Amino acid sequence: MLSHSQQKFLTSLQVKKYRQKYRNFLVEGVKIAGELLTQHWVPVVAVYATDEWIQSNVTLAEAYNAQLTGVTEAELRKISALTTPNQVLVVAECPQSPLSAPAWESEGAFSLYLEGIQDPGNMGAMLRIADWFGFGCIYCSPDCVDVYSPKVIQAGMGACLRIFVEEAILADVKQRYPQVPLIGAVMDGDNLFTAPLPVSGLLVIGNEGRGIRQDTLPLLDHRVTIPRGAGGQAESLNAAVAAGILSAMLCRNYLLK
Amino acid sequence: MLSHSQQKFLTSLQVKKYRQKYRNFLVEGVKIAGELLTQHWVPVVAVYATDEWIQSNVTLAEAYNAQLTGVTEAELRKISALTTPNQVLVVAECPQSPLSAPAWESEGAFSLYLEGIQDPGNMGAMLRIADWFGFGCIYCSPDCVDVYSPKVIQAGMGACLRIFVEEAILADVKQRYPQVPLIGAVMDGDNLFTAPLPVSGLLVIGNEGRGIRQDTLPLLDHRVTIPRGAGGQAESLNAAVAAGILSAMLCRNYLLK
Repeated sequence: MLSHSQQKFLTSLQVKKYRQKYRNFLVEGVKIAGELLTQHWVPVVAVYATDEWIQSNVTLAEAYNAQLTGVTEAELRKISALTTPNQVLVVAECPQSPLSAPAWESEGAFSLYLEGIQDPGNMGAMLRIADWFGFGCIYCSPDCVDVYSPKVIQAGMGACLRIFVEEAILADVKQRYPQVPLIGAVMDGDNLFTAPLPVSGLLVIGNEGRGIRQDTLPLLDHRVTIPRGAGGQAESLNAAVAAGILSAMLCRNYLLK
Repeated sequence: MLSHSQQKFLTSLQVKKYRQKYRNFLVEGVKIAGELLTQHWVPVVAVYATDEWIQSNVTLAEAYNAQLTGVTEAELRKISALTTPNQVLVVAECPQSPLSAPAWESEGAFSLYLEGIQDPGNMGAMLRIADWFGFGCIYCSPDCVDVYSPKVIQAGMGACLRIFVEEAILADVKQRYPQVPLIGAVMDGDNLFTAPLPVSGLLVIGNEGRGIRQDTLPLLDHRVTIPRGAGGQAESLNAAVAAGILSAMLCRNYLLK
């Protein structure tokens, strides 16, 4: 049974301001919430689940007994950010400290800096890229969409639970790690397929519409471009697709082995 | 001034059934609609524009005078599929015949087969990939999201206006072009970075959740996997990101030159 104040608190977590205030966020659905409860990536504050979920997840339901509230499907619809709520909703704590600090020294040690990424689907896709290639960290400029928003959690398939995300100004990151090369995707850079690439570094991806900001460009050590094919007419690639191609090419050398 | 029947017809084009019935679709916004009107990729049936657009696009407004209807912003909101309508809405004719037939013979001549792609954002991103690398054609399985849906048009930045899209069963495409190698992204294939790749062919991308269908797998000539980095924990990459990485690696050899 869901109290009015619980309902109010839970729906407030769909808004960035309240996620930041309470340092809590929502993780929904059998798959992602189930993974979080099993893997203990971040502390769990509360679990709201339907009978159907509780009956198919007896062990988890017992393990989280103290935090578990049974809800009806109608109640779940009231607190869910999903169009089609899926049995379970978890309130989790935003990670406070690095899950793992970036190890810049080793070959293949890359991290991602996202500048003004606006689309939750792109943000989620980029978190998955970082989590696939084993990146150390994701830095986000303050004007990025919040990584703990329900849409990003879903699009990222929970990647932000496993990889350390930090809001940071690029110039500050550069100052903190002056030896780390910055690689940026631009429209008029060196051919990605022939340019010499560093064995570790920070990959900078710009906003979907305007790309990397003008005042960021001088900070870059490598400016690369994904060459367009013969007959290709597109003005640009989707930001997450470009990030994926660049990440793959950066990691390629050590993934050949 | 917009008549009731015009309004009814225009909003019906937000639905696949009516787009197929009338062989018409909507292209919206200053950027994409402007490109379409300038580039003549597909025949234009009608143009609905606000005074603001007409005044900033005098030459285009004159060129399309016969098809142009001036509308108020309130009227545009009624017929637009966008959350924030943007000055101009064009009704265009779905292309009937190949804009260009795939030239399989030459090096770098790739096409894309999309199997059960559901997300409009992914579909649009993949149209842009094909349009960036100069792919010959995009084939879509019948259960893909419609490429002429307003969300795909926006996400694809008009790519489907420039590249030939055909609904087709993969087995039929294979029968039509038996000499063309089929390359598929699977979870347990050869390392994409070391596997021998064909110099032209058809890249097959599966559904976002379940990947390439079991009964499609035997049709593939090359099964490749994007290797996961050390410490990477993501279960998969976003389908469009994976398509981008595969396309880049396929085109890499001829883009080195």
